[in-house]
Amino acid sequence: MDVWRQHAVLALEWLGTAAFAISGVLSAMRKRMDVVGICVCGFLTAFGGGTLRDVLIDRRPFFWVENQAVLLATLALCVALALFIRQSHLERGARWLDIPDAIGLGLFCATGVELSWVSGQPALVTILMGVITATFGGVLRDMVANEIPTLFRDHRPYAICAALGALTYVGLAQADAPEGMPLAVCAGVTTFTRWLALRRDWRLPPIKN
Amino acid sequence: MDVWRQHAVLALEWLGTAAFAISGVLSAMRKRMDVVGICVCGFLTAFGGGTLRDVLIDRRPFFWVENQAVLLATLALCVALALFIRQSHLERGARWLDIPDAIGLGLFCATGVELSWVSGQPALVTILMGVITATFGGVLRDMVANEIPTLFRDHRPYAICAALGALTYVGLAQADAPEGMPLAVCAGVTTFTRWLALRRDWRLPPIKN
Amino acid sequence: MDVWRQHAVLALEWLGTAAFAISGVLSAMRKRMDVVGICVCGFLTAFGGGTLRDVLIDRRPFFWVENQAVLLATLALCVALALFIRQSHLERGARWLDIPDAIGLGLFCATGVELSWVSGQPALVTILMGVITATFGGVLRDMVANEIPTLFRDHRPYAICAALGALTYVGLAQADAPEGMPLAVCAGVTTFTRWLALRRDWRLPPIKN
Repeated sequence: MDVWRQHAVLALEWLGTAAFAISGVLSAMRKRMDVVGICVCGFLTAFGGGTLRDVLIDRRPFFWVENQAVLLATLALCVALALFIRQSHLERGARWLDIPDAIGLGLFCATGVELSWVSGQPALVTILMGVITATFGGVLRDMVANEIPTLFRDHRPYAICAALGALTYVGLAQADAPEGMPLAVCAGVTTFTRWLALRRDWRLPPIKN
Repeated sequence: MDVWRQHAVLALEWLGTAAFAISGVLSAMRKRMDVVGICVCGFLTAFGGGTLRDVLIDRRPFFWVENQAVLLATLALCVALALFIRQSHLERGARWLDIPDAIGLGLFCATGVELSWVSGQPALVTILMGVITATFGGVLRDMVANEIPTLFRDHRPYAICAALGALTYVGLAQADAPEGMPLAVCAGVTTFTRWLALRRDWRLPPIKN
Repeated sequence: MDVWRQHAVLALEWLGTAAFAISGVLSAMRKRMDVVGICVCGFLTAFGGGTLRDVLIDRRPFFWVENQAVLLATLALCVALALFIRQSHLERGARWLDIPDAIGLGLFCATGVELSWVSGQPALVTILMGVITATFGGVLRDMVANEIPTLFRDHRPYAICAALGALTYVGLAQADAPEGMPLAVCAGVTTFTRWLALRRDWRLPPIKN
């Protein structure tokens, strides 16, 4: 059963990684970075959130050390996109990235929550780790591109979808739900609410300026 | 006696946290961030310095994991400020923030120094940790808001007040001052010199440009 | 023999540190920072890469805790440059910094690779750690100065020289080269290819924009 759980977590990391890396590559291209900048932005977006989580819960080796194939695959993806695909082609696909990105959000949140919960963190910290894993890759991507992170200013639910998913995980895990179920539900809830928020054009409550 | 020390450190963390969170919220509002951005800026400013210190001296669990009430209280404070208080009202209070901020500076520096010293770090590292705990929340706040940190360019003593306070702590601790005294003196010296620097409009020595 | 290795690593850290600190000081001066900002930028550039490496491979105490003289010397260097040397004089020397900076790149890369390899990291991670140690001080310097890091956008080989040097280290170490040889060759290859890249004005492959 533990083997199954490990494999599930691993597969989830792979899927989310590609979607996030592409968004990092695109951001770097918009800023006219060179191939090194594009690869670093791809890496930061894909691995930044999970690495920060691992530093915070003091988990070593990092998930990408245990699993170097994903490092090499991401590197190859970034270099290939940088050298062989025109930015305008990727840009045209930017709208289509919304769905893979929502899937990545759900998957990263679920793995972050799972690893934090299994390592014995309390509920509140577990939720925080889920949100950080899911969103801080994008924050680092924007900081490196010298912009205020989109996460903080686009008035759309993103971190909040992850928080909601993480909350359902903790609820299910505390209710002794069957193995693997909280993980799947957390990813599903996060991805679905994010997708719904985009489709229905939901906005966060306005600020008193 | 150890219980007393623990309680003192805890109480200090609480007080400083609120002052710093408000300065983060205000910075985020000026940049027109949404409620997520405002909360993250409040959190980063309030917990960023102490978290960085804990990462650097490899201290786990983080101070905010041991003490989750302060996390929830800060979250509630940030959300309340974002949704119910006009920026102009907070802005009008920005001048008044100088004193709570100076208190926060002293308190954070003192707890940073104490934790580092007690964990056996050498004097120079202890002073550095005090300064980092006290000031890096603000540095992260400015970096996230896409500005050169105020700490680095306003030509007023801030980090230097913290360094002075940390120095007195180390001096007193090495002279075997009574329990709790170095902590209090460090916070007092830092806050007082910062207050004096603001009142007398002291400037750092000019740079040869 | 282990003593020799330790001394070599130490001496390398010293040399690279000064070159990197000066580049941080110069960047801070260009942004009209005060003496605190100049010192922090000098420190971040000089110690940021190595500190990040130590956090990532979970190595404590940090190299600058084991070796505080280098901290004090760097602080004295930064303060002296800030208060007594005109920016225009330093600027005039900026071109001359290319060579010391290339030496620093080689030295930092070599020590990063060595520490990571000796601590048992796999080859790919070791190469990554060499590149991070060598380049992330400069990345932090530019982020704090509110710029997109030069490393990511100047279309010249820098990180790639470090990656090449790190690769030769791993190759030699796996081929059981004599003690100390991989370290020296790694530093040499990195510095030489960087110097060659500058002299021949090599460019990275263009991006499809």
